[in-house]
Amino acid sequence: MKASRFFVSTLKEAPADAEVVSHQLMTRAGMIKKLGAGIYTYMPMGLRVIRKVEAIVREEMNRAGAVECAMPVVQPSELWQETGRFEKMGPELLRIQDRHARDFVIQPTSEEVVTDIARQELRSYKQLPKNLYQIQTKFRDERRPRFGLMRGREFTMKDAYSFDRDQAGAKASYQAMAEAYRRIFDRFGLTYRAVAADSGAIGGDLSEEFQVIAATGEDAIVYCPTSDYAANMEKAESAPPAGPRPAASQPRTLTPTPGKATCADVAGLLGVPLARTVKSLVLATDELNEAGEAVGVRVWLLLLRGDHDMNEIKVSKVPGLDNGFRFATVPEIEEHFGAKPGYLGPLDLKKPVRIVADREVAVMADWICGANQEGHHITGVNWGRDLPEPEAVADLRNVVAGDPSPDGRGELTIERGIEVGHVFYLGTKYSKAMNATFLGEDGKPAHFEMGCYGIGVTRLPAAAIEQNHDERGIIWPDAIAPFTVVLCPIGMDRSQEVKAAAEKLYEELLAAGVDVLLDDRGERPGAMFADWELIGVPHRVVLSDRGLKEGQVEYQHRRDSSATKVGAGDILAYVKERLTA
Amino acid sequence: MKASRFFVSTLKEAPADAEVVSHQLMTRAGMIKKLGAGIYTYMPMGLRVIRKVEAIVREEMNRAGAVECAMPVVQPSELWQETGRFEKMGPELLRIQDRHARDFVIQPTSEEVVTDIARQELRSYKQLPKNLYQIQTKFRDERRPRFGLMRGREFTMKDAYSFDRDQAGAKASYQAMAEAYRRIFDRFGLTYRAVAADSGAIGGDLSEEFQVIAATGEDAIVYCPTSDYAANMEKAESAPPAGPRPAASQPRTLTPTPGKATCADVAGLLGVPLARTVKSLVLATDELNEAGEAVGVRVWLLLLRGDHDMNEIKVSKVPGLDNGFRFATVPEIEEHFGAKPGYLGPLDLKKPVRIVADREVAVMADWICGANQEGHHITGVNWGRDLPEPEAVADLRNVVAGDPSPDGRGELTIERGIEVGHVFYLGTKYSKAMNATFLGEDGKPAHFEMGCYGIGVTRLPAAAIEQNHDERGIIWPDAIAPFTVVLCPIGMDRSQEVKAAAEKLYEELLAAGVDVLLDDRGERPGAMFADWELIGVPHRVVLSDRGLKEGQVEYQHRRDSSATKVGAGDILAYVKERLTA
Repeated sequence: MKASRFFVSTLKEAPADAEVVSHQLMTRAGMIKKLGAGIYTYMPMGLRVIRKVEAIVREEMNRAGAVECAMPVVQPSELWQETGRFEKMGPELLRIQDRHARDFVIQPTSEEVVTDIARQELRSYKQLPKNLYQIQTKFRDERRPRFGLMRGREFTMKDAYSFDRDQAGAKASYQAMAEAYRRIFDRFGLTYRAVAADSGAIGGDLSEEFQVIAATGEDAIVYCPTSDYAANMEKAESAPPAGPRPAASQPRTLTPTPGKATCADVAGLLGVPLARTVKSLVLATDELNEAGEAVGVRVWLLLLRGDHDMNEIKVSKVPGLDNGFRFATVPEIEEHFGAKPGYLGPLDLKKPVRIVADREVAVMADWICGANQEGHHITGVNWGRDLPEPEAVADLRNVVAGDPSPDGRGELTIERGIEVGHVFYLGTKYSKAMNATFLGEDGKPAHFEMGCYGIGVTRLPAAAIEQNHDERGIIWPDAIAPFTVVLCPIGMDRSQEVKAAAEKLYEELLAAGVDVLLDDRGERPGAMFADWELIGVPHRVVLSDRGLKEGQVEYQHRRDSSATKVGAGDILAYVKERLTA
Repeated sequence: MKASRFFVSTLKEAPADAEVVSHQLMTRAGMIKKLGAGIYTYMPMGLRVIRKVEAIVREEMNRAGAVECAMPVVQPSELWQETGRFEKMGPELLRIQDRHARDFVIQPTSEEVVTDIARQELRSYKQLPKNLYQIQTKFRDERRPRFGLMRGREFTMKDAYSFDRDQAGAKASYQAMAEAYRRIFDRFGLTYRAVAADSGAIGGDLSEEFQVIAATGEDAIVYCPTSDYAANMEKAESAPPAGPRPAASQPRTLTPTPGKATCADVAGLLGVPLARTVKSLVLATDELNEAGEAVGVRVWLLLLRGDHDMNEIKVSKVPGLDNGFRFATVPEIEEHFGAKPGYLGPLDLKKPVRIVADREVAVMADWICGANQEGHHITGVNWGRDLPEPEAVADLRNVVAGDPSPDGRGELTIERGIEVGHVFYLGTKYSKAMNATFLGEDGKPAHFEMGCYGIGVTRLPAAAIEQNHDERGIIWPDAIAPFTVVLCPIGMDRSQEVKAAAEKLYEELLAAGVDVLLDDRGERPGAMFADWELIGVPHRVVLSDRGLKEGQVEYQHRRDSSATKVGAGDILAYVKERLTA
């Protein structure tokens, strides 16, 4: 490609609403252009990246035996009503009425449509397994779209859906997809981790997220550097406590802590480690009658160590809390504890509550908690002596760095990641809701065992940038760079020699199958270099009159701090050697 | 590709709502699957065709210097309000409100968005010309979607938009696109015509449709077999009448024609050629005051030869009718003619009307028209004698087969076509509406001269089928076939020799870059052949035990009536020789 025929458009300043670096750089590099909140035009420079992402995804999906189709963007509501998602999904689901006032949605995903295809087309176990995928426009009407392509409303997703005759088959399909995803992310040239994720109501271990590692990532991911263990924060199990509970050694003491309503404040005041304090979290569950009306409230007290954070997913698996819970209201708290939030604890309750202790709290002795009395805590609290042994003990907390790995093979480390892929075993959730069956080998109808597998195609470039940039701009991996090599001739309009050498090298690189751009715009060297450093083309060759007189050109990788002089006759081989994709 | 890994799904019967052969065959061949009225999933077999169409379009657009981008499917209404199209477009424009009750549309085309990009990005004449294109999902909420992909609601269109500094530049951009379209349609391997089309209010000749010739086409297209002349019916000019008006030879005679209200009936009753009769069409224009309120009605009488049909586009260019017209109401007709429709004519009017005669009518003598009296016509009518010479004479009619070509180089022929492409000079319509300017060489802002260029990517396969099918199914041109070659091994599960030969040929064809499918499903030969004839793969090779024992396989092109025996060692070369793309 020659720059004069292409669409190069760079900006010195990022727009005011661009909060993250990928949004700033993609806008400044002319890759995306905002049309509305969370809605972007993919400009030529950005679309080249997206097309390369798509091509890698498509190749590996095909290699893994998945078959491409394209489901409609605008989908009639009927199928969405079959699964209940038309009602259940919130305003994120963009609903439309057509000219005949019929309801439609813009697809955020396509489980309903693909399950409908399966129940019509896949009639026999002999046709299984099948995996259908699409690379298609999606829409989610985010309440607060932001961060450019990272959390847009309109986006492109690759979504694949597998159909199997039984769980063993589904597991094999899942594993094949997980392997394909590893190949895909390897080929992108990004640092990533595949981490175990929560699989929700379905249970089992068949849910993994593919996280691109970046300091700016929204997600905390947990891994063990000395073993294979990796999970997202929601999923990461904490290892059981190391030892048994020590014996009580302190008396129970009511201690004034005026104005100290947090564990950290109390620990500071008393001069004890935060890990000696226990925090009280008060939840509530509504008791419903058969008609679904609230007929009563049950209040729960969760006890966690002061230095630990609650993990909502883990809490949602505690028996009794697994049908939904909420934080208790202040009146509910006052009714049961006789105190306002800030000084709550499990002793001297006004009305009974259900107590669930985190596993670490259950093995603590001589701990500190709120006294259910404004401005007071109790120190020296001990299970069995000051209050009964906990009714329920569970893993309720987020892991922290330094926790032992659940596989016992090291300590956990935490880093930030951006989720760009997810593989998920669905079981029969959708096939049962839509009564999607096939005839089994035994002649009886059976529900499909399904899996779903997504990659955020337009999110991926943003994640790549969060991971790979410097103060001058983007640094693309070769595989998804808009152009792999840029040729920057200096004074091409003045020097016939520079022009001829640039055109020759351009043709040679093209002939070698290299995605090369020749910058023939006639920009000054400084502006030209700044443009391509901002855009992030990984390999640059500069041709100048002076250099060519000495038989030399300059090569510089985007990560190099300075240029390397290379013989003009050797540059083709030199560049080709440096390409990684 | 091996069939067992792919998604082959054929039907014996077409769905009841499939009225046209392409809809029937695409459904039966498992290429599309209806999700709702005018909304289809592109199934794997159909998507392969669409992807090949896209690839050819993309290659040629790039070659012509256009640059690919992707504009959003969901577009905020603001830009659409700038051009007035948000209000002006009827219910075909699908309107949406998001969660904040802001208005959006789903793009039917993207003139507004691309013009907005241009006015922000293209600041100087130095950046021109530019041509941006996208291959993207579109939606038009057709009142009566039908004919499968031929007139769907959701579809894929390639739309390109050129920006130039002046009309000469715009004309050059237009011509480059028209040439690119010829290359594209040549490569598709379809019989097509590029025909002149009406360019609406803009005028000039810069509008051409690309019509795939098919007996079932919706459009009538006109061409001269002995010259280059080709136009659609709307546009095709009729040549001026051959000679001067003959002298009057008959007396004006009131003739009873009871119950004969059409020209054909009258000609039949009187035993004269239909071309001797004149039909009366009564139009009306509303006179508006400055506030746009109707303050009066003007009634028009159009006179056409009884064997000619009115051409609305031509009528809409008659001075006085060029701001819109409608058919007159019965009360308006009675008020001016004193008679009901069926016996109307230009003589003995109750109130004056504006008369416009088609050029052919203006040179008629002794003609027959309605008498403005129930059950009566007048014969022997003559201009200048029975009524004044016509106030206005114009080309008002559709051409008919046998008319002289307007270029004077032969006679016109009419055939049917399906419009799949359109190149159009837009002028400054959108750039003025949106005040999209660039700085000209003279330092002054100027409006972009624009063109737009569309190809119906998902309509093209349907048009290809309308042109290329037989009673057994589809016959794809090589370039856009879902697979170019299908290998049909007979008894592959029983015969090791057949299996080995089929696998070997499959690998050889793949290595030669041929898009080959090996049917390893184990179907019986009859069912297998029927499937691939329905699907329309152009080249078929059958491998059987018996044939291989004689060292032979069978080759058959989809258009061949029987198979040809080819030596097993020669088949690779034989097939490659027969490929056209």
